[in-house]
Amino acid sequence: MLKGEIIAIGSEMLTPFRIDTNSLWLTERLNALGIEVKLKTIVGDDEALLEEIFTGALQRSEIVLSTGGLGPTEDDITRKIFARILQRRLILNEEILETIKNRFARRNMPMPAINARQAMIIEGAIILKNENGTAPGMLIEHGSSTIVMLPGPPRELQPMFNNSVANYLERRAGKLKIIRQSIYIFGLSESRTDEIAAPIYKKYPNISTTILFRNGQIELHLSAQSSNPEEAQKSLDQLSGELDAALDEYIFSRCDETLEEVIGSLLKQKGYTLATAESCTGGLLAGRITDVPGSSDYFLEGLITYSNESKCRLLGVPEKLIEEHGAVSEEVATAMAEGARRLAHSTFGIGITGIAGPSGGSAEKPVGLVYLALADEMQSTARKFLFPGDRVFIRTLAVNAALDLLRRRIKKEKRDYEKDENNGTNEKP
Amino acid sequence: MLKGEIIAIGSEMLTPFRIDTNSLWLTERLNALGIEVKLKTIVGDDEALLEEIFTGALQRSEIVLSTGGLGPTEDDITRKIFARILQRRLILNEEILETIKNRFARRNMPMPAINARQAMIIEGAIILKNENGTAPGMLIEHGSSTIVMLPGPPRELQPMFNNSVANYLERRAGKLKIIRQSIYIFGLSESRTDEIAAPIYKKYPNISTTILFRNGQIELHLSAQSSNPEEAQKSLDQLSGELDAALDEYIFSRCDETLEEVIGSLLKQKGYTLATAESCTGGLLAGRITDVPGSSDYFLEGLITYSNESKCRLLGVPEKLIEEHGAVSEEVATAMAEGARRLAHSTFGIGITGIAGPSGGSAEKPVGLVYLALADEMQSTARKFLFPGDRVFIRTLAVNAALDLLRRRIKKEKRDYEKDENNGTNEKP
Repeated sequence: MLKGEIIAIGSEMLTPFRIDTNSLWLTERLNALGIEVKLKTIVGDDEALLEEIFTGALQRSEIVLSTGGLGPTEDDITRKIFARILQRRLILNEEILETIKNRFARRNMPMPAINARQAMIIEGAIILKNENGTAPGMLIEHGSSTIVMLPGPPRELQPMFNNSVANYLERRAGKLKIIRQSIYIFGLSESRTDEIAAPIYKKYPNISTTILFRNGQIELHLSAQSSNPEEAQKSLDQLSGELDAALDEYIFSRCDETLEEVIGSLLKQKGYTLATAESCTGGLLAGRITDVPGSSDYFLEGLITYSNESKCRLLGVPEKLIEEHGAVSEEVATAMAEGARRLAHSTFGIGITGIAGPSGGSAEKPVGLVYLALADEMQSTARKFLFPGDRVFIRTLAVNAALDLLRRRIKKEKRDYEKDENNGTNEKP
Repeated sequence: MLKGEIIAIGSEMLTPFRIDTNSLWLTERLNALGIEVKLKTIVGDDEALLEEIFTGALQRSEIVLSTGGLGPTEDDITRKIFARILQRRLILNEEILETIKNRFARRNMPMPAINARQAMIIEGAIILKNENGTAPGMLIEHGSSTIVMLPGPPRELQPMFNNSVANYLERRAGKLKIIRQSIYIFGLSESRTDEIAAPIYKKYPNISTTILFRNGQIELHLSAQSSNPEEAQKSLDQLSGELDAALDEYIFSRCDETLEEVIGSLLKQKGYTLATAESCTGGLLAGRITDVPGSSDYFLEGLITYSNESKCRLLGVPEKLIEEHGAVSEEVATAMAEGARRLAHSTFGIGITGIAGPSGGSAEKPVGLVYLALADEMQSTARKFLFPGDRVFIRTLAVNAALDLLRRRIKKEKRDYEKDENNGTNEKP
């Protein structure tokens, strides 16, 4: 497979504040075109170092992709350094200069003199049009290497890559491609997932399987390198079919959907509606549900009852219930879910109450204890969870668990969660 | 200043799914100790390439910090490659082997044979204890370079760095340190901020000033390199004092607090309480407010009234008001804020109604139109915003604006937002 490397240029990415995220997007695109990313480098506006990095890259990689450093200021040295290494001239391109001037003119601004620098093109380069900014990119063939210079802002980089680079690289890359398939899981720990999945994926030595724990969920990424995409896809389908059977209802998506997108589709499809009552998650559940465009079709309302008084007054939770069982209890979670449903006349009501910490825990009711309840016309069920981690993590896991509970109810899944206190977490010795 | 570089090792960071975030934390710590990060490299489990990268690093950098590749499997090659380059032996350390065995024994597990690999130490290395995992780190002096090998997981890396590496590096680094100060701003665009700030920070050539737009807010990062921390701090204080005067109430924090932390402190300090009524933000405002530990002291309750019927029934918004002005209007936002406040008997009520898109917009009421209202005992005020961007961005900006409106009310700020439709965004020609 063709070897590529990505060089991100800009001193701001060497501070504690900003990271190179372009490379994630580029890696996905490059892999699909048949280019493996072997190295990523982040370097500042430092001429000597940049020269060293570019020189090394041209020696070892067939595709050298740079991002950033094409701006109009003196700090933007990508053009200059590549020209120097390649021993090619930088030539002012009148057409590009005109385009940049016009871009400013459309906003009734004169072009600042320094922007002319962006019309300097390395001799022999293919110019890559920038639809969303002033800096054009460049593509240069040099010996066995191809150099692609892209601007840093994602909204400039992405269309430029798609419109002017992808086709070229695909022709250059030949037939070997990376084909991917991802499976998203909730309710199992990373190690338990691997215990179940390993005997299966090990039968497919040509498929690389990665298990990642992210945002309180497990992701299983399968990928195959092949010059025969149909055959590779068949092989991926076969493996993912076997994993489906084994992991079954722990799987909530096979097509890069989020849990909230999955429940959104299910609710819409069945014509069901939803109302929520949250305590420790403080609106995050409703926030996630309404992240999905069109969620107003099924999400009617949410109540965030942080105080006990709110729980009683807004949701009709009996005061006595809180006195007897405490606000963090199965009984109160159930009353919250039923209250939310009754008020909104919705198909489902969800109730969440728990202790997100860092304070408020006790021996009997520790930080991380969360009760989730789900009410519909026929029944109410509640579940107890003990989530690990800090406040942010506990709240995230509680929201995921609530969404998954609803998903299982709608799909009428029978099998229960694994009895694993570290539900979905990755604790190693 | 001492030159450092960070090498992150692990093939998973060359996929589209995972990024090196350790380097942000490490950069902040290294800068404070007096080490400038000149380069970051991300490389997979590839022996030849890793050897090339390590060799280059030892030639150019005084501090070479690696993260990852210290696990027990064959893929974990950091130890092996450094030993090869340095031409030093790998020696089994019985004491470490015992520690690893004990770690497994405490969990009633036998140590898998492969974990013995983690007790192999490069000849002459200082061993860095791992309190949260099995892989020890190593520190090696080699010529004018210092090599520091750290494990990948943040919860292992961070305490190891703090306990066993920081002191050593501080002694090695000498007197020149980087001192930082950050200022957080809401309500101005990036370019408007720079217009105001540039004439001021340009008077301080020894201080480097970076303006970043992140999460719908502006961050101004000031940093100075100096061997005299007190003098540098004085100079930073002077610059930030001048910026304070110029940017004034647009500044919501000078000490790395979030907007929700700032309003949390203000509410707590004054003994005020808060209730929210959200439509287009669907609980995100309450979610942000309750991200702050102890927010139950001032946050009483929140209502997410997605449907018109909810707005009327739960918040007492008159049906006629919605008929006359539409659900997305100043009048309805105000009625929502007043309704939330009245129900909860809180000091403040916030109401949000708008069109987050992508659908639901019209010529008269386009996507991005958001009305925010704030009610207290004395008055209700509403503001109209037209936020740019997609659904996620519009919702984020609306939440920020709501938090900032409350901050301004409590602080009794007089000056209004800039009349800038792209409030807080970064549109360049």
